Amino acid sequence: MKKSILSTIDAPKDLKVLSRTELKQLCGEIRETLIRRLSATGGHVGSNLAMVEITVALHTIFDSPRDQIVFDVSHQCYTHKMLTGRRTAYDDPGRYASVSGFTNPAESEHDLFAIGHTSTAIGLATGLAKARDVKGERNNVIAIVGDGALSGGEAFEGLNTAAVLGSNLIILINDNDMSIAENHGGLYRNLRLLRVTNGRVECNLFRALGFDYRFVSDGNDMDAVLDALIRVKDVDHPVVVHLCTVKGKGYGPAEEDREKWHYMGPFDVSTGKQLYTPEPVETYELLTRDFLSDQMKKDRTVVAVTAGTPKIFGFDEPLRRQFPDQFIDVGIAEAQAVSMVSGIAKSGGKPVFGVSCAFLPRACDQLLQELALNKSPAVILVFFAGISEGSQTHMGIFDIPLTIHLPHLICLAPTCKEEYLRMLTWGLEQTEAPVIIRVPGVAVVSRGAELMPSYRLPAKYEIAKRGSLVAILALGKLFALGEQVRCHLEERTGMAATLINPRYMTGFDTDVLEHLKCAHRLIVTLEDGVIDGGFGERIARYYGSSDMKVLSYGAEKAFVDHVPVREQCERYRLTAEQIVDDVLNIVGL
Amino acid sequence: MKKSILSTIDAPKDLKVLSRTELKQLCGEIRETLIRRLSATGGHVGSNLAMVEITVALHTIFDSPRDQIVFDVSHQCYTHKMLTGRRTAYDDPGRYASVSGFTNPAESEHDLFAIGHTSTAIGLATGLAKARDVKGERNNVIAIVGDGALSGGEAFEGLNTAAVLGSNLIILINDNDMSIAENHGGLYRNLRLLRVTNGRVECNLFRALGFDYRFVSDGNDMDAVLDALIRVKDVDHPVVVHLCTVKGKGYGPAEEDREKWHYMGPFDVSTGKQLYTPEPVETYELLTRDFLSDQMKKDRTVVAVTAGTPKIFGFDEPLRRQFPDQFIDVGIAEAQAVSMVSGIAKSGGKPVFGVSCAFLPRACDQLLQELALNKSPAVILVFFAGISEGSQTHMGIFDIPLTIHLPHLICLAPTCKEEYLRMLTWGLEQTEAPVIIRVPGVAVVSRGAELMPSYRLPAKYEIAKRGSLVAILALGKLFALGEQVRCHLEERTGMAATLINPRYMTGFDTDVLEHLKCAHRLIVTLEDGVIDGGFGERIARYYGSSDMKVLSYGAEKAFVDHVPVREQCERYRLTAEQIVDDVLNIVGL
Repeated sequence: MKKSILSTIDAPKDLKVLSRTELKQLCGEIRETLIRRLSATGGHVGSNLAMVEITVALHTIFDSPRDQIVFDVSHQCYTHKMLTGRRTAYDDPGRYASVSGFTNPAESEHDLFAIGHTSTAIGLATGLAKARDVKGERNNVIAIVGDGALSGGEAFEGLNTAAVLGSNLIILINDNDMSIAENHGGLYRNLRLLRVTNGRVECNLFRALGFDYRFVSDGNDMDAVLDALIRVKDVDHPVVVHLCTVKGKGYGPAEEDREKWHYMGPFDVSTGKQLYTPEPVETYELLTRDFLSDQMKKDRTVVAVTAGTPKIFGFDEPLRRQFPDQFIDVGIAEAQAVSMVSGIAKSGGKPVFGVSCAFLPRACDQLLQELALNKSPAVILVFFAGISEGSQTHMGIFDIPLTIHLPHLICLAPTCKEEYLRMLTWGLEQTEAPVIIRVPGVAVVSRGAELMPSYRLPAKYEIAKRGSLVAILALGKLFALGEQVRCHLEERTGMAATLINPRYMTGFDTDVLEHLKCAHRLIVTLEDGVIDGGFGERIARYYGSSDMKVLSYGAEKAFVDHVPVREQCERYRLTAEQIVDDVLNIVGL
Repeated sequence: MKKSILSTIDAPKDLKVLSRTELKQLCGEIRETLIRRLSATGGHVGSNLAMVEITVALHTIFDSPRDQIVFDVSHQCYTHKMLTGRRTAYDDPGRYASVSGFTNPAESEHDLFAIGHTSTAIGLATGLAKARDVKGERNNVIAIVGDGALSGGEAFEGLNTAAVLGSNLIILINDNDMSIAENHGGLYRNLRLLRVTNGRVECNLFRALGFDYRFVSDGNDMDAVLDALIRVKDVDHPVVVHLCTVKGKGYGPAEEDREKWHYMGPFDVSTGKQLYTPEPVETYELLTRDFLSDQMKKDRTVVAVTAGTPKIFGFDEPLRRQFPDQFIDVGIAEAQAVSMVSGIAKSGGKPVFGVSCAFLPRACDQLLQELALNKSPAVILVFFAGISEGSQTHMGIFDIPLTIHLPHLICLAPTCKEEYLRMLTWGLEQTEAPVIIRVPGVAVVSRGAELMPSYRLPAKYEIAKRGSLVAILALGKLFALGEQVRCHLEERTGMAATLINPRYMTGFDTDVLEHLKCAHRLIVTLEDGVIDGGFGERIARYYGSSDMKVLSYGAEKAFVDHVPVREQCERYRLTAEQIVDDVLNIVGL
């Protein structure tokens, strides 16, 4: 059997000796390798298949790492990793786990940044270009940005600065005409017009910003891409190269359903069927979808808002079509989402913004100014909060410090399905304050929490079990851990601890906290987030000048990349056994 | 003497009976009133003089509050306030203090939002428009946005959504060709081209985004503005009206030096001279300017970055001209600033980003992802942090919770000039971690702090005075209060407390904290920021399970609008007398 070309590529320099015919053959091999690997491990299918030719051309024409390449989001970097010394992570099943799905400087000098959020590459590239200029160097700086990422304000800010830098900066727009779902916003009309006119329409967003502009109608045509990159190499000014690609290119099922194949679990290559179809279990995603769509049918002023991730609360394409006026996707633009829901709420509508915990920091100032300062009664649902096994770029532990220090915001942490739905219902009904609900995990728990007619402040905690000596304040999803701690304590010592569901991340229930002083000596706080600036520290401050002791548990302030949840919890002493050990040490039983 | 027209205007309806000649006369009266009032109180001179005709026309043609008007930043709302029942706040010196300098729903139903940050109006307006549509109402929604604010990504995100809303939304661009300082970025080339071609150039940023676009070459020409607004009233789609105005219009000195007159203290109307020229005292602004410009001369890789507020660290126009390559203004775009400095630092440059505390939340995600995750050794200087008498929209108390929970960031709080400069010097030299320095106030303090060769982690606290029983951890600027507390304690009880300068907001000096357990029973923490999620709560958590008591002092979690600092401190028990009372209550002396 003829040796593959791919197997000869250990570094970008190995590309430079290949003919165009060989480069095209290599693209075919890469695509096959990608499909085989993705079918076993899952991953970002669509964007990586779209980017094969552009990435091969980049490493053929440019000279990484001297020439600096920044991938926006970097979920489309698989071919880049294959070509920069990490091939075996894609063609050797035993080494599939040896790389992450994003660029990571710990893996290679060709990965300049750890990146996982959208719209950041242009800004980072302006920094690289500026550093190069003040150091008097002459390399190329290249940012690769998807069309979806252009809806983020940070990308626009980057473009605005890049356009006037006055030196080499090459921005490749990988336009596959898709975000995770379909694109939304005025800018996509311009991209469409540019595609339709072969880049010739006079009214051109990039030229309007002052960029030199080049158009490549088929970004999966190796010759066209190579020629385009050769022409912009070493330019002395900022240039945008607009390349049209096909999301899922070369794999039929992925080309056909581009939203589904944005990210895919393991699948059968011949049929495109997912290998492990999850059991149809109840999830908070589906629970939210059913609740919201029901409310939206009953009340035309209920409006669901997403920032580019509609499926986070179950709004798939058919459901989106069902509510053309009451469902809005603002693009990958969390600031705009919070600003818009503030406007809707202030004017008598009932908006709900569903957002992934990892992206909430994108809207901090809007939470403070547009929302909290104006007491706009919008509801924000924070999904995927808590310790997870995911990427260091998508951790769900940083939200609590960002929100609980803000005036007027009511931050709620339900412990189960019934409590979640009650809080959500109340949040929609009330007209007094912005409400943030931290959705308690993915799989649904039912525990018969004591529900309240209203969740306005001051906070009222639920005393789930009465006991003495030790009281456990177990926030949200960690209520279950609180129950375990209580059980273990009882098993080991016969002592019955008090177990409390605080319900609120903001505000103190001073009645309960004061009353606990009578028969308790130690408070244990549990939260599924970073401990610095979190819920537990507030309780520690509350009791700071009293005789009550407080032990606070939460995640360590650290970036964690793909570490099993159990292992992280052990590291943070967030297991029932460890907590009981600590408690007994202190109360001396 | 003829009665003025202005004196007859108690509400917008009173404008609707006036002839165009009378409206023009009214504009003259308003301008005179503004200049007289501003000369006595100070305020945003340039933008308010520019906006007279547009505001009068708005309230003549539209029907506020049924038609909803949102002012971006809202520092240009003085004429709006004059016309909506608050005239006496401008023409009666005894009532000058009766309104704030920003829109405020507490003052009037014509003020829809409390706004003070840039780039928010379009997003809020998209929300108002959406609420109107789902409620089946038919009013106009109008956003007024300055050209400077368009550089903020949030404004772009708003435009992107607005363009496809499909219903009435009128965006007035008040283009006076200035931000606070001159504009920077590619978009301003397009605005200039539009001005030069009377709006006719084909390549048009707003049309590219899909907007209907109208151009008014003289936005201070009452007839032209009235005609333009009449034409867009009740349109059934989103439209941008681009009006060119003159910053400082009608007042010679303000038209001549537009940066200086963006915001001005009380002045002499005839000469334009400021009445109270501040004594040439040493400030951290000037200290930073001198230090940085010196470093920039010595080292071409030192780069100073601002997001539209160059004077925050003293970069006035001559100084900016002196460093064309090493000084960058990215526009009002804090996210881009953090992203860019991360890129510069990662590539071997030495960037320093100076930012006002009130605007740091704009870049939370960039602090987490681009900066902290990538350990980019950039330096961020946070100015105007702490309790102040300013607007509720510009409070300086929310930064500590936003930064101290982030991994890898080193957050420093110098107590005096020498310590500040030492930390800044070290921050520039080191290549390990991002460094945030909380600049300790405006006026410079010198106290001979113990300086360190390095401020890397783990934290090392400075024990300024040794004592027993009580230890005071006084952060940054509040070190002076710590000294006072110590004095009062000694005066009242003869007891010498320990006084500590923690230096670091992040990290514990466990040696010191453990050692304190020997001879101390109470820790007092002082911080010039919101107490929730702050420094004191971390110390309370540290000692939570020990016998040490902790009393934490800081600002209350609340929005505070123009309340004297002394009054706020008393409210928070942040005075030496109150703290000593509390301490004695606990230690029982």
